[in-house]
Amino acid sequence: MSGDDDVPLILTWDDGNSGLLGEDDPDQADGNGVGNYDNINNVSIPGPSDSRAQSSLRHSWEMNYQEAAIYLQEGENNDKFYTHPRSALALSAYLFVHNHLFYLMELLTGVLLMILSLAEAPAVPSLRLDVYVHATLELFALVMVAFELCMKLRWLGFHTFIRHKRTMVKTCVLFIQFTEAIVVLVRQTSHLRVTRALRPIFLVDCRYCGAVRRNLRQIFQSLPSFIDILLLLLFFMIIFAILGFCLFSTNPADPYFNTLENSIVSLFVLLTTANFPDVMMPAYARNRCSCVFFIVYLSIELYFIMNLLLAVVFDTFNGVEKVKFKSLLLHKRSAMRHAFQLLVSRQRPDGVSLKQFDGLLRFYRPRMSARDRFLTFKALNQSGTTMLSLEDFYKIYEVMGLKWRARRSGEYWFDDLPHTAFLIFKGINLVVKSKAFQYVMYIVVAVNGVWILVETNMLNSKPVCVCVCVFYGVEVLLKITGLGPVAYFSSGWNLFDFSVTVFAFLGLIALAFDMEPFYFIVVLRPLQLLRLFKIKQRYRNVLDTMFELFPRMASLGLTLIIFYYSFAIVGMEFFADVIYPNCCNTSTVADSYRQVNVTIGNRTVLEEGYYYLNNFNNILNSFVTLFELTVVNNWYITMEGVTSQTSHWSRLYFMTFYIVTMVVMTIIVAFILDAFVFRMNYSRKNRESLDDPEDEKGIVMEAEVLQDEALQTLDLYRHTLAGTNLSSLQEMCHSSLVFLGRRSRTKSDLSMKMYQEEIQVCYEMIDLDAPVPHRDTPVPHTCPSQTIN
Amino acid sequence: MSGDDDVPLILTWDDGNSGLLGEDDPDQADGNGVGNYDNINNVSIPGPSDSRAQSSLRHSWEMNYQEAAIYLQEGENNDKFYTHPRSALALSAYLFVHNHLFYLMELLTGVLLMILSLAEAPAVPSLRLDVYVHATLELFALVMVAFELCMKLRWLGFHTFIRHKRTMVKTCVLFIQFTEAIVVLVRQTSHLRVTRALRPIFLVDCRYCGAVRRNLRQIFQSLPSFIDILLLLLFFMIIFAILGFCLFSTNPADPYFNTLENSIVSLFVLLTTANFPDVMMPAYARNRCSCVFFIVYLSIELYFIMNLLLAVVFDTFNGVEKVKFKSLLLHKRSAMRHAFQLLVSRQRPDGVSLKQFDGLLRFYRPRMSARDRFLTFKALNQSGTTMLSLEDFYKIYEVMGLKWRARRSGEYWFDDLPHTAFLIFKGINLVVKSKAFQYVMYIVVAVNGVWILVETNMLNSKPVCVCVCVFYGVEVLLKITGLGPVAYFSSGWNLFDFSVTVFAFLGLIALAFDMEPFYFIVVLRPLQLLRLFKIKQRYRNVLDTMFELFPRMASLGLTLIIFYYSFAIVGMEFFADVIYPNCCNTSTVADSYRQVNVTIGNRTVLEEGYYYLNNFNNILNSFVTLFELTVVNNWYITMEGVTSQTSHWSRLYFMTFYIVTMVVMTIIVAFILDAFVFRMNYSRKNRESLDDPEDEKGIVMEAEVLQDEALQTLDLYRHTLAGTNLSSLQEMCHSSLVFLGRRSRTKSDLSMKMYQEEIQVCYEMIDLDAPVPHRDTPVPHTCPSQTIN
Repeated sequence: MSGDDDVPLILTWDDGNSGLLGEDDPDQADGNGVGNYDNINNVSIPGPSDSRAQSSLRHSWEMNYQEAAIYLQEGENNDKFYTHPRSALALSAYLFVHNHLFYLMELLTGVLLMILSLAEAPAVPSLRLDVYVHATLELFALVMVAFELCMKLRWLGFHTFIRHKRTMVKTCVLFIQFTEAIVVLVRQTSHLRVTRALRPIFLVDCRYCGAVRRNLRQIFQSLPSFIDILLLLLFFMIIFAILGFCLFSTNPADPYFNTLENSIVSLFVLLTTANFPDVMMPAYARNRCSCVFFIVYLSIELYFIMNLLLAVVFDTFNGVEKVKFKSLLLHKRSAMRHAFQLLVSRQRPDGVSLKQFDGLLRFYRPRMSARDRFLTFKALNQSGTTMLSLEDFYKIYEVMGLKWRARRSGEYWFDDLPHTAFLIFKGINLVVKSKAFQYVMYIVVAVNGVWILVETNMLNSKPVCVCVCVFYGVEVLLKITGLGPVAYFSSGWNLFDFSVTVFAFLGLIALAFDMEPFYFIVVLRPLQLLRLFKIKQRYRNVLDTMFELFPRMASLGLTLIIFYYSFAIVGMEFFADVIYPNCCNTSTVADSYRQVNVTIGNRTVLEEGYYYLNNFNNILNSFVTLFELTVVNNWYITMEGVTSQTSHWSRLYFMTFYIVTMVVMTIIVAFILDAFVFRMNYSRKNRESLDDPEDEKGIVMEAEVLQDEALQTLDLYRHTLAGTNLSSLQEMCHSSLVFLGRRSRTKSDLSMKMYQEEIQVCYEMIDLDAPVPHRDTPVPHTCPSQTIN
Repeated sequence: MSGDDDVPLILTWDDGNSGLLGEDDPDQADGNGVGNYDNINNVSIPGPSDSRAQSSLRHSWEMNYQEAAIYLQEGENNDKFYTHPRSALALSAYLFVHNHLFYLMELLTGVLLMILSLAEAPAVPSLRLDVYVHATLELFALVMVAFELCMKLRWLGFHTFIRHKRTMVKTCVLFIQFTEAIVVLVRQTSHLRVTRALRPIFLVDCRYCGAVRRNLRQIFQSLPSFIDILLLLLFFMIIFAILGFCLFSTNPADPYFNTLENSIVSLFVLLTTANFPDVMMPAYARNRCSCVFFIVYLSIELYFIMNLLLAVVFDTFNGVEKVKFKSLLLHKRSAMRHAFQLLVSRQRPDGVSLKQFDGLLRFYRPRMSARDRFLTFKALNQSGTTMLSLEDFYKIYEVMGLKWRARRSGEYWFDDLPHTAFLIFKGINLVVKSKAFQYVMYIVVAVNGVWILVETNMLNSKPVCVCVCVFYGVEVLLKITGLGPVAYFSSGWNLFDFSVTVFAFLGLIALAFDMEPFYFIVVLRPLQLLRLFKIKQRYRNVLDTMFELFPRMASLGLTLIIFYYSFAIVGMEFFADVIYPNCCNTSTVADSYRQVNVTIGNRTVLEEGYYYLNNFNNILNSFVTLFELTVVNNWYITMEGVTSQTSHWSRLYFMTFYIVTMVVMTIIVAFILDAFVFRMNYSRKNRESLDDPEDEKGIVMEAEVLQDEALQTLDLYRHTLAGTNLSSLQEMCHSSLVFLGRRSRTKSDLSMKMYQEEIQVCYEMIDLDAPVPHRDTPVPHTCPSQTIN
C-alpha cells in the first residue's frame, strides 16, 4: 500500500552503501522518487537497470527497521540513548548483548557467584566443597563476567564505557575478586574475604534485575532526607543517654546505665523497644518517678521522630515515583519519535506505511504473527488513512501488548450446540450466575471454616472433609460447564477456587493412602475461606491490589536479600563459630545461651536458652539470624552475645544493620502505603467520573478487517515476505471480521489516567521545544519543574 | 456612620416589642425610613414623640447584635444551628452555659470525678481516703453534673435535649453513677464498679475538650475500614494457627503450639513480634526448615497486612480531614450569613454600617477596645464605602484574631537615640545579623556539645561549663540590644535560645551552691545543641511543624489517656493485687516474676525478675503497666502472669487493649504522616509559586486611618457609647496612622490556600442554592459529593 521503493528520510549506520541515496548521487534518488500507491506489484519484477539500487535500498530499509526497533526497545527498557549503537560494528555487539541467552548467562553467572558462599569456608555442612573446587568455580564465573564486560566494551565503545559509572564499579570489583580468587587458589585456603560482600553487584547489574536496580536507586534517592531525620533521632538519643547516665548510674542494681557507652547502647536498643520494660525496671523499682524518663524518651523518639522518618520517606518516595513515571514516559516518547523518523520515507515524511511498520515489527517483535502485525497497524491507524501519523505512532507501546482474537458472534460458548443441550447449559449458566448460588457457596465455605476449627481442636474425623471436597468439586464443574472453560479460567478468582479445590482433592488422596505430607491438606483447606472475602468490595480491591503489587514486592524482597547477603558475608567473616551453648556467661544475656541443669529449690530442670542457634556459622544460619534482627524483637540478645565473645566494636555491625534494614523497611512501608493510597484514590476518582464497568476487564481495543482489505494485505505480504508463515493471515481472508485485542491493566495505565492533565502539559512543552528531534540531540527527560509536584 | 434609627431587617426573640416595626405599624416604619448619613447627631436629642420607639428600637438592635454574636460563636465552635436559642428564656440559659466560668466548672467536675479513682478502693497508698469521704465527693461532683444538665435542658428545650445523643448518653451514665455512689455510701464499701470506666464521658463532654471529641469522632469514622482489614489479619492468623498446631504440636519441647488455644495466642503475640525468636526456637532447634513457617507468617501479617492497615487508615483519615475542613468552612459561612442578615437594616439591606458592626463586636468580643473594633471594621471594609458588603463580612473570622499595632516609622528600635548611641547599636545590629556571627555561634555550640560528651564520660570539671554559659549570656545580650527586645522575642527560635540560656544560668547557680537537683543543668545543657539544627531548612521545617502539631498531639495524647483510664479501671477491678513476687510459678513466664536465691553450679545469686512491678494495684501503676502494653515489647509476660493467676479469659482484656491501642496508634501515625506530608506539599507548592517571604511572619493586614476619619469615629462612639473607655481611640486622633494587624498562621489558613479551587467551587454551589438563607432553613453542611475527594 505504499511506495515500495520510497527512500528513507534518514539513513542509519553508514556502511558505504548510503552514498547512493545522498544528495551527491542525484540520479539514484530521482529514480526512487516516483514510488507510489500502485507499484506494489513491481517489487518482484524490478527493471534490470535498478536491481542493484533496489537491493541496496532494501538493505538500508532493513537497517532502518532494525535501528527503529532498537530505539523502541531502549524506550521500553529505559536505556539512555547515549548507549545507542553508533556503527555497524557496535550494532553486532549490541545484538549479541541484547539477547535473552546473554541475559540468562549474566543472571546465572551472578547467581553462581552468590551461591558459592554456601560452599565456601564457613560452609553449610552438607554442601561443603574443596577450596580447589570452589575457587575454580569462582574463577570460571569471573571469567564469564569479564567476557560480558568485553562485549559491552565493544558495543559501547571505550569512551562511553568509562563514562558509565555502574559498569566501571563492576570492573573494579571484578579485578579485586579476580585477584582474591587467584590468591585463594594459590594458598589453597580462604583468607579474610570481606570483599565477597560485593558479589551481589554482579547480580544487580544483570538485565533481569532492573527492578532491583530501580529499588536501590530509589533507596539512595530517599537517603539524604532519611539521614537528616536520623541525625535528629540520634541527637535526642545522645541527649537522653547523657541524662540517663547522670540519673541512673548511681544505682548499683542497674546494669543498663552504668557507663556512658552502656547508656547509649541501652537507649539505642530502647529505640527498637526490644529491651523495653527490662531497661526501666531497676530504676523503676528504686523510684517510681523514673518511669517518666522512659515515657518521654519513647514518646519523642518512637512515636514522633520515627513516624516523622516514615513521613519524610513517604513524601520523597511519592515525589520520586511521580518524577520517574514522567521521565519514563517522556523517554518513551522520544524513543518513538526517533523510531518514527527512521521509518518515514523522503517522499512522505509524515506517515509510516504498513510495509515499513511491518518491517519494524519483524525486528521489534520477531515472534509476532503476520496477522497480529497487521492488526496492530490497524489498531494504531485511527485516522483511517493508509499511513500512521506521529500521533498514531505514539500509541505503539499501549497497543503492542494486546492479544488479538476474533470476536465471537454468539454470547455463550454453547451457542452452537443442539437445542436440548443448549437449554441444559443455559440453565446451568443461569444457576451459576445467580446470587443464590453464590450465597449458598459462601455459607458452605463459612460452615466448613467453623468445622475446620472444631475438627482441629478435636483431632479427628475426615468424612465431613470428603463431603465438602466433593461439594467444591461439583461447584467447579458446574461453573466450568456453565460459563465455558475460557470464561471460567480468565477470572483470577475462579483460578484460585479451581487450584484450591484441586489441591484439596490431592490432599484427600494423600489422606486416603495415609501418606506423610498430611498437613498439606490442612494448610490448604482453610484457604478456601479466603473466598468469603470476595463478598465485600473493599476486600476485592485489597486482594487485587495485593496481586498487582506482587512483582514489585518480590523485587523489594530481592533487594532486601541482597543487603542480607552482604551483611551475612561480613557476619560470617567476623563472627563464625563465636556462638555456642553456654558461650556468653559473662554477659547480661547469659540465660538465653545457657543449656544446663538448674536447681530451683529441690527441682532439677534442663534450662535451655536456644539463642546459640542464632549464629553466623554458615550463610543459611546467617540469613535466619539477620531475619530475626530485622524483626528487631530481642535482637540485643544476639548482639550482646556476640559482643561478649568478640569486642565492643561488634555492636557497630548490629547497629548498622538495624539502620540499614530500617531504611529498607521504611521504603517498603512507604511503597505499600503509596501503592494502596494511589489505588484507592484511583478507584474513588473513577467511581465518581463514569463508573467504568470495563475497568475490570483490562484494556480492550477493536479492529475491524474487511475481506478485500485482508486479501490485499495477504498479497502484499506474499510479495515482500516470501517464506514466512502466512497461514494466520489466510484464515482472516474468508470473511470480514472484527478482532478484539485485550491486555490486563498495568500500573502505568492507572498512572496515565491519574496524571492525565499534568502529562498533557508536559507533552505540549516538550513538543514545542523540539518539534522533530534528531537522534543525536539530547531530549530533555524531565518535565519542567512547575508541572511536577 | 449610618442612620441611627434604621430598622433591623429581621427581628429576633420576639418579646412583645417587635410589633412596632412590623407592617402593621406603618407610621413608625416610615418615620425611621429617613435615616441617613448626617443624622448621627440626632441620637442624643431624639424628638419627644418617638423617644419610646427610639428606645425600643435600640433594644431590638441590641437583641440583634447579641444573636448575631451568638451565630458567629456557633460558627466558630462548630455548634449546630438547631441548638440555637429560640426565645429570650433560652437565651438567658444559653448565656449562662456559654461562659468561661461555666466551662471551667464543667472541666473541674470532670477532672474531679476522674481523679477520685486515685483515692478509691485500690488506692494509691499515700492518697487513700475513707469510703465516706470519696463517696461524698463523688456525689457532690455528680450533683454538679446534674445541675449542668438542667441548665442545658433549659437552653435546648426538652425536644432538642432528648434528640441530642451525646447529652442523652451522659444523662444515662449519670443515673447509673448516681445510684452506685449512693449504694457505696450506704454499704460503706466499694463493690465491683466497672462502670467507673465510663467516667471519662463527663470530661469528654465538656467544652474545653472539643479536640478530644473530634479525635474520638475521627477514630470512630476510621473504624469500619480498620475493622475490615483487622478481620483479614485475624483470618490469616487463624489459618496459620491451625497449621502451626498441626505442624508443631508433636514436639513436646514446644510449649507454644501444644493446644489450638496456645497456638492462636502465640501467633497473636507474634503479630506484635513480642515473643519472636523464642516462639520459633523449639521448632527451629528440631528442624531448621520450620523457620519458613515463621518467616512467611511475619512477612504476610507484620510487613504486609499491618502496613495495609496503616494505608487504609491513612487514606480514610485524609479524606475525613478534608471533608471536615470543608464542612467547617461552610458552617462558618452560613453562620456569617445569619449574622449578616441580623445586622442589616430594612433601609439598606446590602450592608452593615460601622455602628451595627461595633454593636456586634461589643457582644462577640467584649474585651476588644473601641480602637480595635474600628480597625477591624476598616480592615474588613475593602471596598472603601461606608458599609460592609456580605463579601467583606465573610472575612470576619480571619480578621478577628489580628493584633493591631501602629506601624513604626523607623526601621530600628534605636532610631530615636542620639547619634553616638545609634552608631553603637547599629554596629551591634550588623554584627548580630552577620553570617559570621551565626557560624561562630554554631561552632561554639558544636564544641560545647563534644565537650559535654567528654565531660560526662570523665565525670568532672565545671570551669568550661561556666565559660560557655557566659558566652551564651553575652550572645543573648548582644542579640537583644542589636535587634531590640520586641523583634528578638517575636521569634520562636530566639525565645528558645533565651530560655535555655536562662535555665543554664539557673543550673549554674544550683551547681555553685551544691543544690540537689544537679541534673537539671545536665539535661538542659545538651538542648543547646538543638540550635545546630537551625542551619538546615529541612530541620527548621520539621521543628516548626513539630511546634504547630503540638496542640493536636496533646489532644491525641489526652484521647489516649482517656482510653487508658477506662482500661485501668477495668484492670484494677479485676486484677488488683493479683501480681506479687514469685506469684506465677506455674506459668511459662515464671522467671520474670521470680525473686529468689538461685544456685547455679556453686554460686548463689539473687535473681530478680522485676515484672511483679507491672501490676494493677492502683491507678498510677495501672497507667505505667498500660504504657508498657502499648509499647508492646514483652507485653505477653504481663498477660501470661495475670492469666496464670486468674483465668484464661483475662487474655481477652489484654488482646482488646492491644487492638484498641493499635487503632489509636495507627491514627496517631496517620495523623503525623498526614500533617507532615501536607506541610511538605504546601511548602513545595508555595516555593514554586511565588517564594513568599511573608510566609514566615504569619498573616499581616494593613489599615490606614486618616486623622479626620478618626475624629469622626470618636464622635460617633462618644454619642452611642457613653461611659466606655475611649482613650485608645483618642490616641489615634493625633495624626494619620497606618496600623498593622498580625496573627500567626494556623493550619486552617494553610488548608485554605491548599484547597483554594475546590473551596471556591463549593462556595459557588452553596451560594447558588441558597442566596439569602433564613435562620430557620437548614443550610447544607457538606459540599456536593463530586467536589470532595
